[in-house]
Amino acid sequence: MPFSRIISLLTDFGERDGFVGTMKGVILGIEPRATIVDISHEIERQDVDAGAFVLRNSYRYFPKGTIHVVVVDPGVGSARRVLCVQVADYLFLAPDNGVLKYIFHEHPEAPVIAVTNRRYFLPEISQTFHGRDIFSPVAAHLATGVAPAKLGDAVTDYLRGALPLFDETSEAISGEIVYVDRFGNLISNISGDRVAGKRLEVAISGRVISGLSRSYAESTPGEPLALIGSSGFLEIAVNLGDAQRSLGCSVGERLQVRFI
Amino acid sequence: MPFSRIISLLTDFGERDGFVGTMKGVILGIEPRATIVDISHEIERQDVDAGAFVLRNSYRYFPKGTIHVVVVDPGVGSARRVLCVQVADYLFLAPDNGVLKYIFHEHPEAPVIAVTNRRYFLPEISQTFHGRDIFSPVAAHLATGVAPAKLGDAVTDYLRGALPLFDETSEAISGEIVYVDRFGNLISNISGDRVAGKRLEVAISGRVISGLSRSYAESTPGEPLALIGSSGFLEIAVNLGDAQRSLGCSVGERLQVRFI
Amino acid sequence: MPFSRIISLLTDFGERDGFVGTMKGVILGIEPRATIVDISHEIERQDVDAGAFVLRNSYRYFPKGTIHVVVVDPGVGSARRVLCVQVADYLFLAPDNGVLKYIFHEHPEAPVIAVTNRRYFLPEISQTFHGRDIFSPVAAHLATGVAPAKLGDAVTDYLRGALPLFDETSEAISGEIVYVDRFGNLISNISGDRVAGKRLEVAISGRVISGLSRSYAESTPGEPLALIGSSGFLEIAVNLGDAQRSLGCSVGERLQVRFI
Repeated sequence: MPFSRIISLLTDFGERDGFVGTMKGVILGIEPRATIVDISHEIERQDVDAGAFVLRNSYRYFPKGTIHVVVVDPGVGSARRVLCVQVADYLFLAPDNGVLKYIFHEHPEAPVIAVTNRRYFLPEISQTFHGRDIFSPVAAHLATGVAPAKLGDAVTDYLRGALPLFDETSEAISGEIVYVDRFGNLISNISGDRVAGKRLEVAISGRVISGLSRSYAESTPGEPLALIGSSGFLEIAVNLGDAQRSLGCSVGERLQVRFI
Repeated sequence: MPFSRIISLLTDFGERDGFVGTMKGVILGIEPRATIVDISHEIERQDVDAGAFVLRNSYRYFPKGTIHVVVVDPGVGSARRVLCVQVADYLFLAPDNGVLKYIFHEHPEAPVIAVTNRRYFLPEISQTFHGRDIFSPVAAHLATGVAPAKLGDAVTDYLRGALPLFDETSEAISGEIVYVDRFGNLISNISGDRVAGKRLEVAISGRVISGLSRSYAESTPGEPLALIGSSGFLEIAVNLGDAQRSLGCSVGERLQVRFI
Repeated sequence: MPFSRIISLLTDFGERDGFVGTMKGVILGIEPRATIVDISHEIERQDVDAGAFVLRNSYRYFPKGTIHVVVVDPGVGSARRVLCVQVADYLFLAPDNGVLKYIFHEHPEAPVIAVTNRRYFLPEISQTFHGRDIFSPVAAHLATGVAPAKLGDAVTDYLRGALPLFDETSEAISGEIVYVDRFGNLISNISGDRVAGKRLEVAISGRVISGLSRSYAESTPGEPLALIGSSGFLEIAVNLGDAQRSLGCSVGERLQVRFI
């Protein structure tokens, strides 16, 4: 695997309490040459699905060798394990709770290690802040060049997590909204390659949207539109507006694509 | 121009969805030695004026050679252009929507390039996330030393944007609030040098404030005061309070300075 | 003292207005090799106690030699002084308003300097943004190796600040909630070492919690529990919930530990 000293952080810790700064302090104490990049710390508290989705959209844009650390971890302090997953170009460190589900889906053969070697942890381990006491020091040691195999034993009985599936026929696709971004754009689980270039309409929340737009700016301000968003999924948006608010729907809302 | 590998980022992307982390991943993939500094990602969605004002207050405090990247871009995916602007000490990369209006005002002769050379973009360009696909890779290439002239052709028909003007007589100045900061301080468009050292009163929202204070701490807690703020503009504040809330006014509110 | 070029920032400036980015620009202009780490910028406006508590929990996890800069500064522009405090492994730069109270408590003999040498300030000093004009350039100069003694004279009449004390008998401890984190966990001022390993119950807000849990996950979802949190204090939490909301209490709420 390529090597870098870049560590990304993705948590639900928020920006207020100093949790993330503390993690960075720990990392820099072990590997002062680390470059630390925040992906997000504003994942809704304990929202494993949102963390998984944001990771999916971000990780592949980082330099090869980046160590991605994900701490959305409602089970901190329980028996849930910490996993280190190696794919061709990246390492992932995350709790064993499904937050890596997209990674496992894209890399079904990736070797997975249960991180148990306390030599790479802080000397004292709290039961409530493994981000500081386990994830950060382990990530920093990886950034110094420690091989993942030194962290613990390979496991296969980890939680792979289920992707939200869509139903597809030759006439229609039925899916759901899986993420809403800051702009109120409603992102579905329907892959863009299933709808690109086709004549279609999209039904959601009692509204019917005709055709795919290429960009937000293509529709009348205030009108909903459907397009393939930057994550590669079918997305419902409102030009200069907020689709979540306009359509009154959120994560879990069903939508139907009908080919015409 | 002086050279540095510092890239500042100013967007309305928020901190939650991983957009900014993704941009940083792209930058570091092209120029691992870049130092990336966030100016803000909490500009109100699509508020070009607020982005312009925050940029104005910040950019000059950065080391010479800094590349300032501004992505407040309601027209993403439309025909609006991406501009690269070179002033004596800095480079700016921003959509052609007026978000650089203060820069153009301060540097009316600055050469402006329309960025079109796809060689410096990501290979795939989405229609909704040019921050990732265009702004970040172009900024990173600039940080590697690519000359702005390689990005595209010089243009002169860009949107300069209008600054909010104040009316001035020998007896009074009439202006408006252009920005409200986190502390609720109301920042006007009236230059501090127009009022410094003068005997005056300020009328706003039915209140009259006598004289200029030197600091927030100079007034009674809870009472509004006028002072020249850190941005160099006349500002209305409340010591240990929130002027926006106390006075019930916001961006666009008129204020009058009367010399006495 | 060990030397590093790591500067941490802890403020109540928020992330929106560009204040923090501006500070970083100033620092990098003086010491381009500085590594700047955010502890928090979301301390509630002018909440000196919250800033003090977050600093206490974070500072010791940073590499030795880190320069910790704290700007929660309601008295900016008044006669309040700027302090530079040196302890065995760290430097602190903060207003003289008690925000360093935990540091002074842990290091009662630490030398304290009142920072007055304008040579290390920006040339122009505003009355409202000392974070930019004083704290940042002074921190950057410290990171270049300037000795604290060059910043000004030693002082002893600074504000030490009072820690919130708890009352303790052999049968009970009475304390209070001093901080609520993003997860709604209620953190008290009762040291974990006073309660660890003992049979006890905790009374707060009309509820009685039996015994100490080891982790959040140990209780029934929705039920309040008591544990020793990652800051080392007794903490009231709700597994997969929000104790602040469930119990309807916040900072200042009293709690009693009764040994049984």
